[in-house]
Amino acid sequence: MNKFWNDYPALIEELNEVKSIIKQNIKSRESILEESISPMLENGGKMLRPAFLILASRFGECDLEKIHNLAAVIEMLHMATLVHDDIIDDAKLRRGCDTVQHKYGKDYAVYTGDFLFCQCFNMLAKYDYSMENLRDISKALTKICMGEITQYNLRYGKNASLRNYIRIISGKTAALFAISLYAGAHEAKCHESITNSLGKIGYNAGMAFQIIDDILDFSGNTERLGKSALRDLQKGYYTLPLIYALENDKDGRLKKLLNNESLSEIEIEEIILLVNKNSGINRAKAVADKYTERAIERIAKLPDCEAKEIIAASVQKLLNREY
Amino acid sequence: MNKFWNDYPALIEELNEVKSIIKQNIKSRESILEESISPMLENGGKMLRPAFLILASRFGECDLEKIHNLAAVIEMLHMATLVHDDIIDDAKLRRGCDTVQHKYGKDYAVYTGDFLFCQCFNMLAKYDYSMENLRDISKALTKICMGEITQYNLRYGKNASLRNYIRIISGKTAALFAISLYAGAHEAKCHESITNSLGKIGYNAGMAFQIIDDILDFSGNTERLGKSALRDLQKGYYTLPLIYALENDKDGRLKKLLNNESLSEIEIEEIILLVNKNSGINRAKAVADKYTERAIERIAKLPDCEAKEIIAASVQKLLNREY
Repeated sequence: MNKFWNDYPALIEELNEVKSIIKQNIKSRESILEESISPMLENGGKMLRPAFLILASRFGECDLEKIHNLAAVIEMLHMATLVHDDIIDDAKLRRGCDTVQHKYGKDYAVYTGDFLFCQCFNMLAKYDYSMENLRDISKALTKICMGEITQYNLRYGKNASLRNYIRIISGKTAALFAISLYAGAHEAKCHESITNSLGKIGYNAGMAFQIIDDILDFSGNTERLGKSALRDLQKGYYTLPLIYALENDKDGRLKKLLNNESLSEIEIEEIILLVNKNSGINRAKAVADKYTERAIERIAKLPDCEAKEIIAASVQKLLNREY
Repeated sequence: MNKFWNDYPALIEELNEVKSIIKQNIKSRESILEESISPMLENGGKMLRPAFLILASRFGECDLEKIHNLAAVIEMLHMATLVHDDIIDDAKLRRGCDTVQHKYGKDYAVYTGDFLFCQCFNMLAKYDYSMENLRDISKALTKICMGEITQYNLRYGKNASLRNYIRIISGKTAALFAISLYAGAHEAKCHESITNSLGKIGYNAGMAFQIIDDILDFSGNTERLGKSALRDLQKGYYTLPLIYALENDKDGRLKKLLNNESLSEIEIEEIILLVNKNSGINRAKAVADKYTERAIERIAKLPDCEAKEIIAASVQKLLNREY
């Protein structure tokens, strides 16, 4: 388990339970499926989405088994989207491991993602979740998919704007954060106002999380960060720091660099420099801060309990990553 | 509408209603989705699955709106699997039109299939379908996915056997036929024995349908048929006629031909000839006949009504295609 949750051993135990549910559900008569999906789980990330779902459920009365199953579904939906995104992005590594598409080929990755989707629906149909929750989860799924498609359609700076960027990340990142908290609370039969508020906390935290991720790509000096920015550029994804920097690109130097078919190391460094110089980072930071504040304000108004403290601390930690 | 249902104008009207539900549900703010999916619908096939679902519902009491929506879901699930299969098969044409992957690229086809899946779940969550039906549909979906993965894993004659072939087509073809009839009957609250029987009719008809399709690839002399067989061979898919022919391949000539990296027209003709000569066609026909008989026997035992007559006639027509 990622050390992110080290201060909360009880939560780690629950996340391990979620992991073991996922492990059960990626088993099939084709053992290659388990083989290809397991590394993603084992070398996993922070399991933010299932953790938030579990924490949100603590504001009501919950059936642990149903909640853990739902948390597993949310993480598997996330994994399914990662597997398919890696096909589009031609990504070789994810969480330090070979991606399914790189190790087993794109064809196989199409089916692996589909298999994960199918298993999610089986897991949702297994318990008597409320029809509203199923509706909301399927709506969130469409939002994620639409976010990815919009991002793909607007590559290479086509209609690059704050508005379109917000539209993309609302779908591809914030929708799953929002539904994680919302569905956890809804399944635990929380009061409607708390459920809605938790959903909005998820949305705002998810927005800030993605903007910060995109800022980190341009603000670090390390090789890793440079590579990450380069990968986005090569895919043609213009993120917020770049969108803002282009608005201040008086002499057109940045635009000219971006038009290059391939970029040398020196050119990448220049792009990073220009994004900083043209206020791309600062302005993007201001937007991230706005979403962070909204999340924190809403958290403060939640009823006092241990889960509230953990949500507050983890959102702070997540959204104060150095940039 | 395909002329297959020309004798049943009332059914055609209902299938047109299903089509218009699908059209509504492929609309989104990204117009390219509708553009890429529409041709598949307009130049559509026989719409067998939604037709069978509607016919099965006639054995009970049904809410037409819910049934038509469910029929649309089944056709869209089918379309989603076609879009993703075309990526794997590198297929250029489907129903006489460019495939999504050929016209818009593989990356885009991944998302288009995902979008169709997402819309299906939205449509299922929109009405109060029975939880059992949702469970059965999601199980069928997993079967389809597993059938495709097994087919992919067993390419190039790896463990080619009747048993594995049956396993593959049970998933990739028969499961969706079975659930179409089953779900239609179940939603119309038919007696359990009728619902089960309709499901089995779908399964057996689906099995026969796929085997006949695979036989037609080897039994025709036309250019089209030769091409179709070649495509399967190039993908490494060994279908039943070939599996049986290899069992009689005493001198190893067929096996040797199959090992060629690329095949000339003369070699393809020789393969088709050997598949016939080695009893591949006749033995596969016997298996198809067995499934056809099972379907027809079960249909005969259904309560008399117009839907029964239409199912009987259409299954006969479908499974007596010339081979």
